[in-house]
Amino acid sequence: MGLNRSTILGLVSDLTEAGLVAEELPRDTGRAGRPSLVVRPRSDQVYVLAFDVGVDRLAAARIGLGGQFLDRCESALTLDDRHEPTVVARLLAGFADQMLGTTEAGSRCVGVGVALRGLVRHADGLVRYAPNMGWTDQAFGAELARQLGMSIPVRVDNEANLGALAEHMRGAGVGADNVVYLHGDIGIGGGVIVDGRLLRGRDGYGGEVGHMIVNPRDGNHCGCGAQGCLEAEAGEGALLAAAGRDPRATGQEAVHAVVAAAERGDTVALAALHRVSDWLGVGTASLINIFNPSVVIFGGILREVFLSAAAPIRSRINRSTLDVARESLRLRVSTLGDDTVLVGAAELGFSDILADPLATIAYTPRKHLRQSPVR
Amino acid sequence: MGLNRSTILGLVSDLTEAGLVAEELPRDTGRAGRPSLVVRPRSDQVYVLAFDVGVDRLAAARIGLGGQFLDRCESALTLDDRHEPTVVARLLAGFADQMLGTTEAGSRCVGVGVALRGLVRHADGLVRYAPNMGWTDQAFGAELARQLGMSIPVRVDNEANLGALAEHMRGAGVGADNVVYLHGDIGIGGGVIVDGRLLRGRDGYGGEVGHMIVNPRDGNHCGCGAQGCLEAEAGEGALLAAAGRDPRATGQEAVHAVVAAAERGDTVALAALHRVSDWLGVGTASLINIFNPSVVIFGGILREVFLSAAAPIRSRINRSTLDVARESLRLRVSTLGDDTVLVGAAELGFSDILADPLATIAYTPRKHLRQSPVR
Repeated sequence: MGLNRSTILGLVSDLTEAGLVAEELPRDTGRAGRPSLVVRPRSDQVYVLAFDVGVDRLAAARIGLGGQFLDRCESALTLDDRHEPTVVARLLAGFADQMLGTTEAGSRCVGVGVALRGLVRHADGLVRYAPNMGWTDQAFGAELARQLGMSIPVRVDNEANLGALAEHMRGAGVGADNVVYLHGDIGIGGGVIVDGRLLRGRDGYGGEVGHMIVNPRDGNHCGCGAQGCLEAEAGEGALLAAAGRDPRATGQEAVHAVVAAAERGDTVALAALHRVSDWLGVGTASLINIFNPSVVIFGGILREVFLSAAAPIRSRINRSTLDVARESLRLRVSTLGDDTVLVGAAELGFSDILADPLATIAYTPRKHLRQSPVR
Repeated sequence: MGLNRSTILGLVSDLTEAGLVAEELPRDTGRAGRPSLVVRPRSDQVYVLAFDVGVDRLAAARIGLGGQFLDRCESALTLDDRHEPTVVARLLAGFADQMLGTTEAGSRCVGVGVALRGLVRHADGLVRYAPNMGWTDQAFGAELARQLGMSIPVRVDNEANLGALAEHMRGAGVGADNVVYLHGDIGIGGGVIVDGRLLRGRDGYGGEVGHMIVNPRDGNHCGCGAQGCLEAEAGEGALLAAAGRDPRATGQEAVHAVVAAAERGDTVALAALHRVSDWLGVGTASLINIFNPSVVIFGGILREVFLSAAAPIRSRINRSTLDVARESLRLRVSTLGDDTVLVGAAELGFSDILADPLATIAYTPRKHLRQSPVR
């Protein structure tokens, strides 16, 4: 970083005093001489709450500085509950109480990050449109902050954006500054890292690669109102319908059943998988020509689709991209698996303290310690 | 900028001493009190050479700091000449001699920017692939630098990237941090500004929106080898072919003839224009969902297409984009017209001096003054 020794000593001592890092002796390196101290984040002492609001499932985790999972909980979300933002916020606040009850003495919650399936305005976290939840213009972050009563900022973002952030920082995209992340769920979400930063666009609605039009003339109708979106041709519903199954009975298991049938040689399932893979290849090819990424990462249910149909996807990409745009390209599956979105929500929760550690740490302790039995 | 008065005085005096800016009395404002001096770039004294290498036309300009055209020349490029990078470089060096012969005493050339129709590696300006020129892996910038003999850097980039930069800094995209620029030429090039910066991707090949696949199943074959690229459905060749004209007789005039015929009510031309506009709308819709831009700008021949077919383009965009993604969106045509690419090449030429004015100015004068009659 071009900083001299005394500058670094000063910075480390400020961070140590604030309780964010600790200096430790390194493990024996086998080399002679006095070993340098190693600076590590105090994951046990400084943490965030990360929430993943799925369409039929809620997940929460307490995640320490550095990305370590300290605690987690999860529950199903019923159709009735999901339509009410206040109910969803109450369920998440319940998770928070539960997880904060077991924290170590003196530990501090420094942020809250929430992932949602919808379009979120970046400036204030307003949930503009979350069709699967039935939400329009919901100030969900403010409602959750009110119910948590913790006087720390609650940040909200789109789940695929956070997935991209997570894979970029701690998963299959580590070390790459240009990353396209495709997240298959009920729909297909996307997140794009451009020059090391999340692509948000003017208001935060960027990266909606699931609504790229791949089949405008005779494509399936999409939930967004358009025809032939990538999500309508290569999403869960399209796979299930093409395999002759109920397209509404979505979920990881339904997708797994089709993939497993295809691997057993079931011709209908095989044709469905190939059809969906070809459309996925078309969409991915366009994204490669547009973004010239180092890596494209398939996450959520697209992980399984890619693992069993990599050959047709690669073949379509090879036919439909510029040679130079793919010469340094890697195609990968998410390495964080089901945790991708929670890890991204945690990174969002940490964003304030990482931007300005000493200013942020000042206002964090107090309030939630009331809820903690450990003093 | 949060700088205090004495810091600004110091900076301005450094820049004045380096000959980059001058302080002047403002025009009479009609207000009482001593007027503050106005700092202006010395456009007449500090300039770059900008080159636009078209497929059938070469253009060059001497452009002063601040974007002012000081001189220009242009000539046709024959089929035989365009295949030889050394010949093209010699023609450009001839333009340079001509323009440098009329410079003011003491004026300085601080950079050279070149726009090319092709994929250019950002790290070193290597022209990886320029199909219309027949070039593969040509170190054109180095060859031009050799022939210019001016010991200043020669920067090379893709013409649509530079068009995007120009419209962003001095045209229809001023004030917008998220801009999609579509440039119609023989093909369709694109340049995207994300958060105020040009999208380049890993190696500089990003922004190739003309090769987004819009019609994978029964689309036209594209020069890049793929099927159904936006450029193959909505480019010059597609318009001319759909209008029953010779798709190889390309050029602004040929496009103008089809648009004029459509405006006179020629049904074949009208149908061709609508067909192309619909594909342009499909591609643009996908880009809006992906980038959530403030503004989409149509340049080159797409300027004329948009001006006479805005309604069908808007209609397709309205049907195929997410509501929230287009709520603050403007659709515009290029305001720099035929100069867009040259203005962008000039900005590229100025990039070193803008990044570090005082370091850059040191190595610039001498060599080319030999070529100038004014001492």
